[in-house]
Amino acid sequence: MTIKYPNGQPFEPSRSTKNDIKRPNQGHRGMSLESELNQANQFYLQNGLANIHKKPTPIQIVNVEYPKRSAAKITEAYFRQASTTDYNGIYQGRYLDFDAKETANQTSFPLSNVHQHQIDHLDDIKRLGGLSFFIIRFTKRNETYLIDSSLLITYWKNRQENRKSVPYTEIVEQGILIPTGLRPSLPYLNAVDQLIAIH
Amino acid sequence: MTIKYPNGQPFEPSRSTKNDIKRPNQGHRGMSLESELNQANQFYLQNGLANIHKKPTPIQIVNVEYPKRSAAKITEAYFRQASTTDYNGIYQGRYLDFDAKETANQTSFPLSNVHQHQIDHLDDIKRLGGLSFFIIRFTKRNETYLIDSSLLITYWKNRQENRKSVPYTEIVEQGILIPTGLRPSLPYLNAVDQLIAIH
Repeated sequence: MTIKYPNGQPFEPSRSTKNDIKRPNQGHRGMSLESELNQANQFYLQNGLANIHKKPTPIQIVNVEYPKRSAAKITEAYFRQASTTDYNGIYQGRYLDFDAKETANQTSFPLSNVHQHQIDHLDDIKRLGGLSFFIIRFTKRNETYLIDSSLLITYWKNRQENRKSVPYTEIVEQGILIPTGLRPSLPYLNAVDQLIAIH
Repeated sequence: MTIKYPNGQPFEPSRSTKNDIKRPNQGHRGMSLESELNQANQFYLQNGLANIHKKPTPIQIVNVEYPKRSAAKITEAYFRQASTTDYNGIYQGRYLDFDAKETANQTSFPLSNVHQHQIDHLDDIKRLGGLSFFIIRFTKRNETYLIDSSLLITYWKNRQENRKSVPYTEIVEQGILIPTGLRPSLPYLNAVDQLIAIH
């Protein structure tokens, strides 16, 4: 079933919303990419290495009830379209901004997972001097890559004429594989170190 | 009436929530500080100067209904405590992070407007090399200042022994007055330029 906004735009549930609904765990020690990123961010925060957070899902609140002796209860609200990516923060004195995507596809990353506003936002962040990337997980391969936003932006801009996905081989070649760790289980800042070294 | 979380912690409505409820406009051309900051951020974004956004209010979603042919409707949700400040982004290649506060007090800024998690967060951002500050408006004076977080952190840490507010005179002396502008009406990045020049 496709949920649509009143303006007819399809509703894309955010990851955090999806997680409110039970769904099968995918790959990588049985944890979702979002859970692993949240754990990694908490680890980095507690160890003073970085301060990176997932942004809350934007919600339009229409009605709130104030029952006596209990918490304010939102009784009518709607999902809004985000204008940015899900994650941002500071690491090594740099502004860093990214979105995280999972795909069950094994041979390519479909661009249908990406939205125009995410491309525009990451393009702008890069222009302003920030670190701007995607973290993409191939769930069936159990592999997670950090991809500089420029690669996806190039594919996105040519998606009318060319293919509507980024080949897996291209991601392996251009991306940085994030190794599996113990604490955190997804030490993605190691990949960011490599991204910084290239720039 | 004080709204409390189920754990007994008082509920502090976020600015965006407050704005859903009609309230008298305060100072500065009749616009709230939040509205002016949002307009300024949009102006800076459109003119390619900076990419700074207000974070959505964190909400715990409990129940969502999916009516046919209309938008997903959240029918039960609760406010959660934020762990960061309201605003962050990139300007001049730097990570920038701040919270915005209004007070009707004319002689001091009461520290009751500030929360421990905001102090902790801004302290950490400063340590990691980011620009970390408060934007404080004295609504009755119609004056808005950018204050480096270190001033408020010092007052916060001494609040048990000393006064529980920052004197207006101290804010005038240590802060940077944000002039009134035409577009945007609150050109606060001019004050950030001065903050960068000092650092």
